[in-house]
Amino acid sequence: MKKAVVLISGGLDSATTAAIAKSEGYDIYALSFDYGQRHRRELDSARLVAKSVGAKDHLVISFDMRKIGGSALTADIDVPLDRDTGEMSEGIPVTYVPARNTIFLAFALSYAETIGAQDIFIGVNQIDYSGYPDCRAEFIDAFEKTANLATKAGVEGTSRFRIRTPLIKLTKADTIRRGLELGVDYSLTWSCYSGGELACGRCDSCKLRLAGFAEAGAGDPLKYEISG
Amino acid sequence: MKKAVVLISGGLDSATTAAIAKSEGYDIYALSFDYGQRHRRELDSARLVAKSVGAKDHLVISFDMRKIGGSALTADIDVPLDRDTGEMSEGIPVTYVPARNTIFLAFALSYAETIGAQDIFIGVNQIDYSGYPDCRAEFIDAFEKTANLATKAGVEGTSRFRIRTPLIKLTKADTIRRGLELGVDYSLTWSCYSGGELACGRCDSCKLRLAGFAEAGAGDPLKYEISG
Repeated sequence: MKKAVVLISGGLDSATTAAIAKSEGYDIYALSFDYGQRHRRELDSARLVAKSVGAKDHLVISFDMRKIGGSALTADIDVPLDRDTGEMSEGIPVTYVPARNTIFLAFALSYAETIGAQDIFIGVNQIDYSGYPDCRAEFIDAFEKTANLATKAGVEGTSRFRIRTPLIKLTKADTIRRGLELGVDYSLTWSCYSGGELACGRCDSCKLRLAGFAEAGAGDPLKYEISG
Repeated sequence: MKKAVVLISGGLDSATTAAIAKSEGYDIYALSFDYGQRHRRELDSARLVAKSVGAKDHLVISFDMRKIGGSALTADIDVPLDRDTGEMSEGIPVTYVPARNTIFLAFALSYAETIGAQDIFIGVNQIDYSGYPDCRAEFIDAFEKTANLATKAGVEGTSRFRIRTPLIKLTKADTIRRGLELGVDYSLTWSCYSGGELACGRCDSCKLRLAGFAEAGAGDPLKYEISG
């Protein structure tokens, strides 16, 4: 069996990405991060998602991005609520965490090289808002080049690392449709940024998720504090 | 004052790099990692080195690379002893830690973006052994490109990140000469991989350091278990 490292945050996108990797016949090695995120509850979902795709192993790497800060997810900056999805496309939001995906992919690369995996799956998406610079294809391509220069396996030619981004050009609704086809149980996932017990329904992440389910003509199995 | 993030391991190279950054007039923001390294004692040296260059702040980010393993520095693999410096140039040694500098630079990038620094200093060196793929200029150049695509500051053009590698083409002896000119106190530094109380004098890192001091015609102020 071929191996893949799959970054699993516990959100809708990474759950769908993991299901796609599984459908392609990979043995899945899940990787998650406890980085001081406000919505740390997503890690419970990450564990359930990893289990649901039969991950061979699931590493959770802990480090404290709050020491660095600079984001509404890792510092005392408010998460914006009640923006409409139009407003979300204006500029890079305060929930951007400086260089987060570079850090995540760097750990994934280390893990992949150690276990002998060539493929690293990440559920980034450059359509339907986000505005995060490290969710764009240009960044992913540059990281992939770097990965093959950074590593023993890359330099010796025993591996050729690939960063796989199956969702990068899908709308949220298309992602949900694809996931439902593959039998993803979205009740296991967690998208809310606010850090409460129930999903808030008001942060950008909740609103985008709810709009995606609505457009896909499907019901979101999560419970929300307020209806979206 | 312009700001620089300087990666400080506590070793000879990073101490010299920090002194060079200081000599160029930067305010220094030091960054070190407690990553499960066998030679964790280097962190005590990192603190002393950061203080000696008057660092404005010193972050120590902790994470456990032993969960990933794959290296003599982070797994139960023996550190090679008593190799001569000729043997060291043969292939990539077992002390290579998969993707370590990619991880380190990714955190440095996050820190730099958050504090508004453009320059990141790292004491990598591609001459005089090492054999580590992530100490080569090709890797550094690729990472720098990635950094400017990964970040809000890079994409919005408010910053242009530079990865500064003042030692990359120096021999160990040249590095020591440069450091001595700048007044680096090498008694504060720590290079040994073995993890003992005194430097072993027998691992690759000790042997290279001792050969460098000998070639520079200077005495190494560190005490060794055995004379090199």
